[in-house]
Amino acid sequence: MMENRNQSARERPEKEGLDHVELARKIRDGNIRAASRLIRDLEDNVPQAKGTLKHIYPHTGKAHVIGITGSPGAGKSTITDELVSAFREKENKVAVLAVDPSSPFSGGAILGDRIRMQRHAGDPDVFIRSLATRGALGGLSGAVGSSVHILDAMGKDKILIETVGVGQQEVDVINHAHTVIVVLVPGMGDDIQAIKAGIMEVADIFVINKSHREGTRRLQKELLSLLDLKENRSGEWTPPVILVDDVLNKETFNGNIATLCQTIDAHHQHLISTRLLEKKLEKKAIVEIHEVLKSSILGPIIKELQASGEFDNMVSKVMKRQSDPYTLVEDVRSAFIRSQKGGE
Amino acid sequence: MMENRNQSARERPEKEGLDHVELARKIRDGNIRAASRLIRDLEDNVPQAKGTLKHIYPHTGKAHVIGITGSPGAGKSTITDELVSAFREKENKVAVLAVDPSSPFSGGAILGDRIRMQRHAGDPDVFIRSLATRGALGGLSGAVGSSVHILDAMGKDKILIETVGVGQQEVDVINHAHTVIVVLVPGMGDDIQAIKAGIMEVADIFVINKSHREGTRRLQKELLSLLDLKENRSGEWTPPVILVDDVLNKETFNGNIATLCQTIDAHHQHLISTRLLEKKLEKKAIVEIHEVLKSSILGPIIKELQASGEFDNMVSKVMKRQSDPYTLVEDVRSAFIRSQKGGE
Repeated sequence: MMENRNQSARERPEKEGLDHVELARKIRDGNIRAASRLIRDLEDNVPQAKGTLKHIYPHTGKAHVIGITGSPGAGKSTITDELVSAFREKENKVAVLAVDPSSPFSGGAILGDRIRMQRHAGDPDVFIRSLATRGALGGLSGAVGSSVHILDAMGKDKILIETVGVGQQEVDVINHAHTVIVVLVPGMGDDIQAIKAGIMEVADIFVINKSHREGTRRLQKELLSLLDLKENRSGEWTPPVILVDDVLNKETFNGNIATLCQTIDAHHQHLISTRLLEKKLEKKAIVEIHEVLKSSILGPIIKELQASGEFDNMVSKVMKRQSDPYTLVEDVRSAFIRSQKGGE
Repeated sequence: MMENRNQSARERPEKEGLDHVELARKIRDGNIRAASRLIRDLEDNVPQAKGTLKHIYPHTGKAHVIGITGSPGAGKSTITDELVSAFREKENKVAVLAVDPSSPFSGGAILGDRIRMQRHAGDPDVFIRSLATRGALGGLSGAVGSSVHILDAMGKDKILIETVGVGQQEVDVINHAHTVIVVLVPGMGDDIQAIKAGIMEVADIFVINKSHREGTRRLQKELLSLLDLKENRSGEWTPPVILVDDVLNKETFNGNIATLCQTIDAHHQHLISTRLLEKKLEKKAIVEIHEVLKSSILGPIIKELQASGEFDNMVSKVMKRQSDPYTLVEDVRSAFIRSQKGGE
């Protein structure tokens, strides 16, 4: 399922326009190599990638995007893995985006986890991809957003975004999801505190994993009392707390995963019926337009300043207090406008 | 010390250019009302504020900026308050910037805390200001950065930035500090977990406040073992853990604060001698140039799109998948260039 990097780099097409259409068509046909290539180009900030994205965009907005987050060791990968199987049983087409902000390369811990998921490797309707920051303009969050579009255009019904940790970068990443699942395990008393620091607000469903362990009842009570603290208007979604038993207790475990699966779909229905999904999609469109404005208008200016050494020059002038950022940027703006007037 | 909002708004000057110079001069003379007005204009994103900042910038880069963060209830305000007194005893000029990202207005919890600090109210060399997000372009972090410049230009030797919580926004804010103090209290076992989530990396000094309480030794051990985990090259600063006794145990308490004060100055010396301070200032200059590029070049474009209703139009087209952000932004870019060519 993971493509060979060198091979596909060698095959990268030369002619632009036509290739965008062709690559976009392949992706819409569900071609895994085409999708992988575009995602990689986005990670690497290859400018041409945007051209293909244009052709993909009209075919997006259909998939249900599910975020899975929680402390390291909480068993997120197991839950993700089981959800993939459960959704496949329902004939859903599934994609998994495993995101690691800390790692400069795809791989590492996530790749290790993914080995366990090889049981899906033979299934053409399951697409698993690791994602790391690298050079992506708009950062990791931007790359995740675009990758979701690609998987969406491939015709995936469910896109699962799994994060490694629970930091702020993860919150940004998980914001691309329509339904956010926070996975906890009993016996890590500190979890709740970590949750309070940002994740609590975005959780739609809580999972207490390995619920055969001691401390499950306490954790559940703590969660419920935290949820009680939140003001709850009628018609609002109250995040359910779902227990998932030891994976070795096959019967209960499978039943728990089925419940989780059902709850995810119920949340999706809730988003649709309350038109909250529309609001989420609108918010995403706004963020995306801002990001593209930044990368398309500001990006080339900064790139040129850096290439000519002018950026270093500006930094040095600011450091020595020979000038200030406001005056320097005004000069940049004037020079930019002059260059545009001279051009064409 | 807190200025009257209405009164100073009434007095706002009309003529531009000259007023920038005049306002900047007043600020450099340490005029509290002039500084307050400029900080408020920055919060409110008044475009003219930049004109004054230009005149201030050459007079900045001298102050030692100290960040104070930690969980709510850890006693950050008390520590800040005591540090103000301790620095004043050393004849340092001091400013406090109390930052609350969650509050849409200055005030609330922070203002309540600040009432306790009124013992400094009669001291013209102590300047205390609350800061909230409001409309600041570049967000709260941008407003904090500019406010630090203003306090710096006022001739403050020590600028204390105090945050309310320990979320990601607080990490961004605290990144403006040269020396970061994380305040903990024993008996909140979850603290360490919260620290791991981002704050641990930026801490230069740990304070265990209310160290007469049970659990101090355990917390200290946990911190030290976490610090041991960090790779430590020779010559590197190892964050010391400083205990601060119950405020009622006057003798020890005052001694502890003196130790903290000493340690802060030692860290400052370390930054200077290792040239790490220079690196921090360089990083700040780079971030600032990026922020000003964004607000000066992108800001007016977005503002115009919003005023003309074109932005809503773009969002609607993206939502309906009638177009995509890339194509729409290309149109914006072309229109912008055309308008520049036509102008002047």
